Amino acid sequence: MRAAFAALGTPSLLLDSVRLDRNIERLRSHLECLRVPLRPHVKTSKCIEVVRRAIAGQPGGITASTLGEASWFFEHGIADILYAVGIVPQRLPAAAALIARGCRLKLILDAPETARMVAEAGIRLSVRFPVLLELDSDGQRAGLEPRSAALVECARIISDNTGSELAGVLTHAGASYDCGSVGEIRALAAKEQAAAADSAVLLREAGFPCPVVSVGSTPTATVANDMSGVTEVRAGVYMFNDLVMAALGVCAVDDIALSVLTTVIGHQRRKGWILVDAGWMALSRDRGPASLSLNQGYGVVCDAKNGTPVGELIVVAVNQEHGVIASRDGQFADIGSIEVGTRLRILPIHACATAGMHDSYSVLNAEGEIVGTWTRMRGWQA
Amino acid sequence: MRAAFAALGTPSLLLDSVRLDRNIERLRSHLECLRVPLRPHVKTSKCIEVVRRAIAGQPGGITASTLGEASWFFEHGIADILYAVGIVPQRLPAAAALIARGCRLKLILDAPETARMVAEAGIRLSVRFPVLLELDSDGQRAGLEPRSAALVECARIISDNTGSELAGVLTHAGASYDCGSVGEIRALAAKEQAAAADSAVLLREAGFPCPVVSVGSTPTATVANDMSGVTEVRAGVYMFNDLVMAALGVCAVDDIALSVLTTVIGHQRRKGWILVDAGWMALSRDRGPASLSLNQGYGVVCDAKNGTPVGELIVVAVNQEHGVIASRDGQFADIGSIEVGTRLRILPIHACATAGMHDSYSVLNAEGEIVGTWTRMRGWQA
Repeated sequence: MRAAFAALGTPSLLLDSVRLDRNIERLRSHLECLRVPLRPHVKTSKCIEVVRRAIAGQPGGITASTLGEASWFFEHGIADILYAVGIVPQRLPAAAALIARGCRLKLILDAPETARMVAEAGIRLSVRFPVLLELDSDGQRAGLEPRSAALVECARIISDNTGSELAGVLTHAGASYDCGSVGEIRALAAKEQAAAADSAVLLREAGFPCPVVSVGSTPTATVANDMSGVTEVRAGVYMFNDLVMAALGVCAVDDIALSVLTTVIGHQRRKGWILVDAGWMALSRDRGPASLSLNQGYGVVCDAKNGTPVGELIVVAVNQEHGVIASRDGQFADIGSIEVGTRLRILPIHACATAGMHDSYSVLNAEGEIVGTWTRMRGWQA
Repeated sequence: MRAAFAALGTPSLLLDSVRLDRNIERLRSHLECLRVPLRPHVKTSKCIEVVRRAIAGQPGGITASTLGEASWFFEHGIADILYAVGIVPQRLPAAAALIARGCRLKLILDAPETARMVAEAGIRLSVRFPVLLELDSDGQRAGLEPRSAALVECARIISDNTGSELAGVLTHAGASYDCGSVGEIRALAAKEQAAAADSAVLLREAGFPCPVVSVGSTPTATVANDMSGVTEVRAGVYMFNDLVMAALGVCAVDDIALSVLTTVIGHQRRKGWILVDAGWMALSRDRGPASLSLNQGYGVVCDAKNGTPVGELIVVAVNQEHGVIASRDGQFADIGSIEVGTRLRILPIHACATAGMHDSYSVLNAEGEIVGTWTRMRGWQA
């Protein structure tokens, strides 16, 4: 299988299975101490082999970001699926069809008008849609105000009919990606936990069952030290990790399991540039939050064999199929020994985005040999 | 087919065939006046139906950015292919195999050591590789110094053996994307033309044939007014156009043929935000060059039916499957009538990048009806 690695075309997406397993075990063990199970998010990997490793020893449920993912993972044997993006009327027939086939699909929403729409569609489609109410714990995206009157109104609409039932509450502190320190992330994790747990208490006091209290993002899940009242944690990128997670202090650079294998295609020696065949088509255009303190460009350059960083080299610019490598500090890099044809690995800024540019993973074992090719699901439709 | 448009899942990639044809005709007609043929770049569309329209009435050759594209388009009937990214030793067997099957494949390189490597491989593989020497006309990426001694040295290595032959010179003024005015682009186009044409003269004076003199980028090709000494122009994004091209003054917003159909999934009404199901997975993370004068965020919001901009709404933030729409000027947007389930179109910042996130195009006619689904090729390997 060493021959397989040597013969791998570039650019290719590499997944180090040792680091993958270590990352999965680290969060599993942390959440076990906090006595809360994990519902891994499949959007990062979109890969059944990865997700099977992530749900091992967990209750077995997953989080999906599209109905296409929900449908695909259901067909691959996973029945408990939380579709964690606000539901729209056009998708309810497909959601009902999944439920009719035995999928324990849960929907989310965050407004009384959507609650009414789901309830009415459930009656029309002869299904009782399980619904989690989405809470806004960080001001960044969707969600009802925690502990608000509108939250109780939604619970009432969802509960007062035969087309829907209240399954619980959910929130996602995505603002954790913009935090400046682990202390800040931990404070946001406490806010995320309180938004969900307190809202569940409020709903129960108002007479509604609220079995599920779901929170999570990789940064908050990793550093949280209190999950009181929370029944499940969602996270996805922790399996792979990336340079954003490393910058946040949530992992080390050496924990990054994902990389892009690339080949040197040329130089501009007077400028200290190396040109490679990994552009944004292979790396993505994601540079992470603007708040990132260390400039990592479009990725950190490592040797191909061990994935160890090469000096201070980063990808400073990308076109569609070209990457330009130079020294992070702008100093002239000694690139004399990195000839055309040399292969390098690039660590990703944002693992979800980099993986999203590829159709499969070439999976490496501890010896750096390719031990498998794992497919990613593609597209949005159920 | 109106029913097909109404039933289209979101996010989906839409291609307006009327605007596509108009864009293709505009550049064709401009270059006809300059008496130079077009070798369209396939990397933007990666689609045989689009490329067939682009080569109609042209000599029929294309430009590819990967050997995978070259191989795929050769299998779809196109024989004259310029692979316009620096060649590496690992790809020469696949390149030789394509040539052996009848593909008129041309390679590019920009260093004496690479020239020697190609020449030797050609002898070993019993093929004469046609080679264009890449010139650096804008200081942004790859390429030999125009009119330099190294250029002549490369020509000599390529010509002095039976494994390779000099096919010509090539340059790409990608810096045109960073220009501040049409005047600046035109000056860069003149520089691009001169770098290529003068280098060809130098090589011919040194006794080398230099049949092909290839230049191009959509901005420079569109505004150039002198193509003396140039034998072909390369461009790709002109077929679709995008908000970067519009900002550069190279097209109008109304010329953009590509868009992403999306559905409203929620609101933050106090903030004037609309949430949609098009995140970076559907739009890409590309925001265009930092020099863009007008803030278009991750795309301009249009109505679904006609693709006409809706007020000053743009996509201000993206997560994987969420887009946040708000007013460009930060003013509170009146979003009262844009309910959950409403569909919108998003015009792309960078058409190559947005199209790169999708597997196919839903093609619209003048009436906004879907008249076809066109597939994109995927992956890098030949």
